[in-house]
Amino acid sequence: MMAMDLTSISDPSFLKDLSNDELEALATDIRKFLINELSATGGHIGPNLGVVELTIALHRAFDSPKDKILWDVGHQAYVHKILTGRACDFATLRQFKGLCGFPKRIESEHDVWETGHSSTSLSAAMGMAAARDIKRMNNYVVPVIGDGALTGGMALEALNHIGSEKTDMTVILNDNEMSIAPNVGALHNVLGRLRTAGKYNKAKDELELLLKKVPAVGGKLAATAERVKDSLKYLLVSGVFFEELGFTYLGPVDGHSFEDLESTLNYAKKMDGPVLVHVITKKGKGFRPAEEDKVGTWHGTGPYKLETGALIKSPAAGPAWSALISETVRKVARTDRRVAAITPAMPVGSKLEGFASEFPDRMFDVGIAEQHAATMAAGMAAEGMKPFLAIYSTFLQRAYDQMLHDISRQNLNVFVGIDRAGLVGADGETHQGVFDIAFLRSMPNFTIMMPKDENEGQHMVRTAISYDSGPIALRYPRGNGIGVPMDEELREIPIGSWEILKEGKDAAIVTFGTTIPMAFAAAERLAEKGIDAEIVNARFIKPFDEEMLISLLDRNIPIMTVEEAVLAGGFGSGVLEFAHDHGYHHSVIGRMGIPDHFIEHGNVGELLKEIGMTDENLAVRVEELVGLSREERTKVL
Amino acid sequence: MMAMDLTSISDPSFLKDLSNDELEALATDIRKFLINELSATGGHIGPNLGVVELTIALHRAFDSPKDKILWDVGHQAYVHKILTGRACDFATLRQFKGLCGFPKRIESEHDVWETGHSSTSLSAAMGMAAARDIKRMNNYVVPVIGDGALTGGMALEALNHIGSEKTDMTVILNDNEMSIAPNVGALHNVLGRLRTAGKYNKAKDELELLLKKVPAVGGKLAATAERVKDSLKYLLVSGVFFEELGFTYLGPVDGHSFEDLESTLNYAKKMDGPVLVHVITKKGKGFRPAEEDKVGTWHGTGPYKLETGALIKSPAAGPAWSALISETVRKVARTDRRVAAITPAMPVGSKLEGFASEFPDRMFDVGIAEQHAATMAAGMAAEGMKPFLAIYSTFLQRAYDQMLHDISRQNLNVFVGIDRAGLVGADGETHQGVFDIAFLRSMPNFTIMMPKDENEGQHMVRTAISYDSGPIALRYPRGNGIGVPMDEELREIPIGSWEILKEGKDAAIVTFGTTIPMAFAAAERLAEKGIDAEIVNARFIKPFDEEMLISLLDRNIPIMTVEEAVLAGGFGSGVLEFAHDHGYHHSVIGRMGIPDHFIEHGNVGELLKEIGMTDENLAVRVEELVGLSREERTKVL
Repeated sequence: MMAMDLTSISDPSFLKDLSNDELEALATDIRKFLINELSATGGHIGPNLGVVELTIALHRAFDSPKDKILWDVGHQAYVHKILTGRACDFATLRQFKGLCGFPKRIESEHDVWETGHSSTSLSAAMGMAAARDIKRMNNYVVPVIGDGALTGGMALEALNHIGSEKTDMTVILNDNEMSIAPNVGALHNVLGRLRTAGKYNKAKDELELLLKKVPAVGGKLAATAERVKDSLKYLLVSGVFFEELGFTYLGPVDGHSFEDLESTLNYAKKMDGPVLVHVITKKGKGFRPAEEDKVGTWHGTGPYKLETGALIKSPAAGPAWSALISETVRKVARTDRRVAAITPAMPVGSKLEGFASEFPDRMFDVGIAEQHAATMAAGMAAEGMKPFLAIYSTFLQRAYDQMLHDISRQNLNVFVGIDRAGLVGADGETHQGVFDIAFLRSMPNFTIMMPKDENEGQHMVRTAISYDSGPIALRYPRGNGIGVPMDEELREIPIGSWEILKEGKDAAIVTFGTTIPMAFAAAERLAEKGIDAEIVNARFIKPFDEEMLISLLDRNIPIMTVEEAVLAGGFGSGVLEFAHDHGYHHSVIGRMGIPDHFIEHGNVGELLKEIGMTDENLAVRVEELVGLSREERTKVL
Repeated sequence: MMAMDLTSISDPSFLKDLSNDELEALATDIRKFLINELSATGGHIGPNLGVVELTIALHRAFDSPKDKILWDVGHQAYVHKILTGRACDFATLRQFKGLCGFPKRIESEHDVWETGHSSTSLSAAMGMAAARDIKRMNNYVVPVIGDGALTGGMALEALNHIGSEKTDMTVILNDNEMSIAPNVGALHNVLGRLRTAGKYNKAKDELELLLKKVPAVGGKLAATAERVKDSLKYLLVSGVFFEELGFTYLGPVDGHSFEDLESTLNYAKKMDGPVLVHVITKKGKGFRPAEEDKVGTWHGTGPYKLETGALIKSPAAGPAWSALISETVRKVARTDRRVAAITPAMPVGSKLEGFASEFPDRMFDVGIAEQHAATMAAGMAAEGMKPFLAIYSTFLQRAYDQMLHDISRQNLNVFVGIDRAGLVGADGETHQGVFDIAFLRSMPNFTIMMPKDENEGQHMVRTAISYDSGPIALRYPRGNGIGVPMDEELREIPIGSWEILKEGKDAAIVTFGTTIPMAFAAAERLAEKGIDAEIVNARFIKPFDEEMLISLLDRNIPIMTVEEAVLAGGFGSGVLEFAHDHGYHHSVIGRMGIPDHFIEHGNVGELLKEIGMTDENLAVRVEELVGLSREERTKVL
């Protein structure tokens, strides 16, 4: 069969007319296309190769967009994008102004729900189903959720509600036995049993046969058997966990068999109430390196070599930030038995494999469960441990209340490693780590740090573990360090101490972390204009170095704050608060940071440029402030 | 038996020596004490009367504080407080500087974990158990969680993790068939089946008997029976839901029988791995009005008459805020079919009973599940509905990521009713609604309003429902309106419009909501000193009335912002940001609000005084700013 030109697809209606052979051929073409395209752009290859047949089957069984297909997490929607007319855009996947790596409502009417964070699809589906029922419409609502995402608390809240409301809905449980890394949790065990449920179904049949034969034994036992049969009825189903929650359980189904998928989906469509279709898929199917991946390397990748599957690594000056931080925690843990590590399903991303192998009894992967992870850390701290809670900035949003109500309020010694802080690039707006400063800064008792380089980063790990006066957060960016020499000995950095990186008499750029190089470049530009800018490493975002800030304010030079984080309520806002609270009402203070809208995907440099965060612009803004300031000073004199 | 003097109790060790009769007498004494004391102070009478025997039994079976007893939510810890030496403090319960209504670590070494929000105890217990195991200690960890709290996502995340780790822990499920209001959700149905589990246990026994007799039927069937027995083993337990998650299920146990509790707890102590003891209690037991309460009136109350159980209502000038807002939503819903209401287990607190009875098909009580509630609202909005999501400010913290990732990012038309915004008083630091401005203000697309009085409040409901450009939040305080005349016709307030309530030439107090009367009182004081203060109703916290704010800045008079919310990143911080972003670097701007620490329990007036938020102090601060400003102006001239 000739390969199909996938870029000619405009919508999924053509699928309804295909024969089984044609479907198989289409699946093959899509796999080839994905493996080929993603070798150049990178992307979530593993999850998408796993759902080729499932996505085709869903678009055959249902009528999108009238029927609502919701992709939980959303990184597995590439096949859906191909089938809804976007194959031609794959060369731009996850690139600036290009095709988004997640469902995006402005891209297509078939993207009815946007995601990025996990476990939201069931709640959204419940909302859509409720709207349908109020409006007396009759479309299907079909959330597709992975086995990993199912352990997220909000997915469980939704199961509980949907099951009790008996809402018509077809939940597709895409079970590939791993989310990003291998799954943990009791639900994982439940699913494991269901995967081999054949034997339970057989046992059920056999028990019924047995009970039928019982009358031969005698009248009393026959009556007993009836009672037993009756009382146990709800137990005698293989998907008892889901049946308990009010769902009709169908499965497990081979997620790579069009025939099995089709018959099960058609059966599910005829049922009333919530149905859960348990589909078994193989992540990475059809691409050997991804199929054989046991730890999650091929969940999402950069570009790779098509022939060998070797990942193309871009050269990096310094160590990966996640590795640096986690390995330093590991080093300190050798002499400090209080140190434990907790990750919500990100042992690989957070580079905790080394810690896990050296300290298996002090390592906890709790699954996709940020809330539980945070409060578990609080519980450990309450008992004298020093837990290192490693969470990506964007996922820490899920644990806001636990940070506030449990950790900050009880002032517990939790060490929060905020990984992927700042812009993350290709994953786009759902993943940018730009809100944590604004939200943590308003929580009492929290200390927040960000290092200027990896050497300071390792000292901050030491600082955080030694600190015993409450919670302390260490932010570090995605990617790699800048390649500075590393000290042999770890040392503590005084809490709340900033440092002057470059002296200057005309203005001060106050910043931290990834934007420090931008400050230096801007200072060079300013020097050319005869403006001598000071650069301050505000490595403690909270508390401030009050002495240093007061001395800056006393000098009455313009201050420019720079942060790769939202401006509203952010670090610069804190500087304004401090100035006015301390009576410096006449200070010239400017702020540079993320404006009040979401930042899409693209490489970080492009994104920063798009929002005016460049050294050129920083120099211009400082120059303006200096101009203002001179004018005002002249007026006063 | 003579009544025991409960104030003579210093710790729970005496319980171990009591006979069953003495325990019964003690329970009676405690009930009398609670009913009597709480008639004067108010408090969570229903939950505490329900756990008298359970608390006594726990303190007999375990050795607190070596063994860790964690009270989920924590409002049911009064009996625990009595048994740990705090009976003498009950006259001050929930009052300023008095006994806290929740566990408080500084009050007692027996309060090992502080709560207020629900569903945290299992995660904290997991942390404490993990710490114990790492330290090779051998204490018990005993979280006590209600059936309502179990539906919170983080509790389910914790069950999933604990069950898979097989951690030693004794979870007490305190099942009183309602949390605050009657429970909803599939788990509630699971528990309902378990409550009548006697028949399943019997069926299980009978099935085993049956299977034993089977060899008589013939060899083939005998083999089948063995296989059946083996395969079905894990299903043949009554607590199958919890067994599926890896727990040993014990129960149900009569929570008012010392004998049953004692034997079950002792059995649980001997078991390895996680055990769930299902205890059935009656909320309000021993006090008829509370026992007969079906809707949650006696969950927590103010003072009441001991003889009749009649609640003593303090006279209120205006309508209860929750009722006003919810009833106005109901009114608009009569002509707008898009309007639906969602509550996470607070139909009574949010006064949605009227809406529920008039529009049962548009009313959703999702149980304690704020995350699901928020994203379900987003799903409804995505399908063209206008959901009114009523959540207390403090509980909205649980839905931070859903507000940001699902609602704000997709710019969906969700109407968030932020109830109990500002200080709430007696519930104390876990319940103060003071963080929502700081966290919502940094989310793009969100409009945030707060009315000056109930008449403006009803117009804001109209405004919110008419608004169709994204999410809109309406904050309203705990308690009652101030008794202003109400307009007959609802009207829309222009988005982002402030209003001048009093003109003044020397300074401007910019505030909103509950602090407006304080501004007027301060203005009177200032007038006596010859300072003419303008008062601005900044009813849109976001977006600002830019025109009005610029005109204030242009007039170059000092501006004082006042907010009953945290200062860090709050409304006043936004005013500072605006001023400096627009080049007004020389404006004299002061801020008044909640400082960077948690605010404990007490009446709101006392709490405001404690943090310096009084009209006297406001006048003093404005006067200072005016002084500064004149000085500076003089300098410039």
